[in-house]
Amino acid sequence: RMKTIVRLSVSLDKELLAAFDRRNRAERYPTRSKAVADLIREKLVKHEWESGGEVAGTITLVYDHHGANVVETLTRIQHDFHRIILASQHIHLDHNNCIEVVVVKGSPEDVKRLADSLKTSKGVKFGNLSMATTGKKM
Amino acid sequence: RMKTIVRLSVSLDKELLAAFDRRNRAERYPTRSKAVADLIREKLVKHEWESGGEVAGTITLVYDHHGANVVETLTRIQHDFHRIILASQHIHLDHNNCIEVVVVKGSPEDVKRLADSLKTSKGVKFGNLSMATTGKKM
Amino acid sequence: RMKTIVRLSVSLDKELLAAFDRRNRAERYPTRSKAVADLIREKLVKHEWESGGEVAGTITLVYDHHGANVVETLTRIQHDFHRIILASQHIHLDHNNCIEVVVVKGSPEDVKRLADSLKTSKGVKFGNLSMATTGKKM
Amino acid sequence: RMKTIVRLSVSLDKELLAAFDRRNRAERYPTRSKAVADLIREKLVKHEWESGGEVAGTITLVYDHHGANVVETLTRIQHDFHRIILASQHIHLDHNNCIEVVVVKGSPEDVKRLADSLKTSKGVKFGNLSMATTGKKM
Repeated sequence: RMKTIVRLSVSLDKELLAAFDRRNRAERYPTRSKAVADLIREKLVKHEWESGGEVAGTITLVYDHHGANVVETLTRIQHDFHRIILASQHIHLDHNNCIEVVVVKGSPEDVKRLADSLKTSKGVKFGNLSMATTGKKM
Repeated sequence: RMKTIVRLSVSLDKELLAAFDRRNRAERYPTRSKAVADLIREKLVKHEWESGGEVAGTITLVYDHHGANVVETLTRIQHDFHRIILASQHIHLDHNNCIEVVVVKGSPEDVKRLADSLKTSKGVKFGNLSMATTGKKM
Repeated sequence: RMKTIVRLSVSLDKELLAAFDRRNRAERYPTRSKAVADLIREKLVKHEWESGGEVAGTITLVYDHHGANVVETLTRIQHDFHRIILASQHIHLDHNNCIEVVVVKGSPEDVKRLADSLKTSKGVKFGNLSMATTGKKM
Repeated sequence: RMKTIVRLSVSLDKELLAAFDRRNRAERYPTRSKAVADLIREKLVKHEWESGGEVAGTITLVYDHHGANVVETLTRIQHDFHRIILASQHIHLDHNNCIEVVVVKGSPEDVKRLADSLKTSKGVKFGNLSMATTGKKM
């Protein structure tokens, strides 16, 4: 889609705005517009996950690949959910431990079910779902 | 302090602004200014708790008052931290369970130490620290 | 209800257990049983809020009481939700700012609606819902 | 390292244990041991990020690759932090939007600085740090 840029103009307490500017400088925000847009998008992304539209996300898993068929199990589960998996990346952390990142796009419900299935698999030490966005509406 | 109202004016993608407005209407925000100010204040409050200035907060505890000296223990701990406690309220949930809310003001470090002490006390079923603000700088 | 104490016995990696014990000592947990029970209860409380049973919680608000009828508005909203409000406490933080803590019991849906109504009211600088439990099933 | 399995045995309220078992069945946990170990590891991972040891994590970014040199900027920042980046994966979500996942290992401080740098870059719509673990001590 074509982007049209418009103006958002609101009234604000002077000291609140000054504190916001100080914070943005500390975080090295290039512009106030980017800082405001980021806050708005974060709010909207949270809502996308609650309202059940299409979302994107990443599932991070840490496991010891020596463990009880863990690689086979994780592969099998990912195949069951292949429709919502965009990509999967496997990195060796040390002799025993791997980190695996699964990038997903689908309904919040399906994505959460996949994350739960992977996380509760025997041998997985850590599992975490990062709730992102497809970026379509923002 | 006297409040001075100024204008914050930024450039934004038209569709992003439309989505923000829709969300604010759904949440019954009275004005865009209030919605933007809330996002900014949330960001600043998060930072207050990380940067170690003076914060306010509430500690919520749920416990069975029959348990092992739990009332005495919680009272003793609160006295040890009396300098940072503003008020404490005790409500009977049912025959066994109480909810107690402790309102605090102090350094994030002290407040977290108090919350941990209360939460780990024998007999406490649930403890939670809600990180708020003194409102001074916003 | 009468409490019956039973034994939970599970197999665990020796180093994981040692790290858990170290952490609990640092947090001054009185016993391993309390530390394990706390983890289990936290998990169950999270689920209570997702599954829609009866929950308890506290809503923390910070506002400048000079602002645009904010006291009247907050009072009116609380009356509309009086069935789920157990108690409300108001504390003066400084000349301008107040902190108000509303203790609630009800369905997660109603509690969230009340929290949203209070938080989005004009004049409220900060609003936060702390998701606790009635303690009944734990 | 060689894993030695030991026994963790604690006293617990009977109903609490029953509720825990029900929850684990609903989440399809294979064993109670895995469910208890997961709670313990989550607690330890949270602490690793606070205490400043070595951690692993993933940074998820969503951006429109047409935007203002965003690809060049993100690439440059990642090179500045190459010592803590293990891998980086780029996926096309649609004609405009990309999702990029950066897997990192380092101190919590460095990892957070990298995440902030990427997130605040012009053109990035969404940024998120998922705090995982190297798995070494668990």
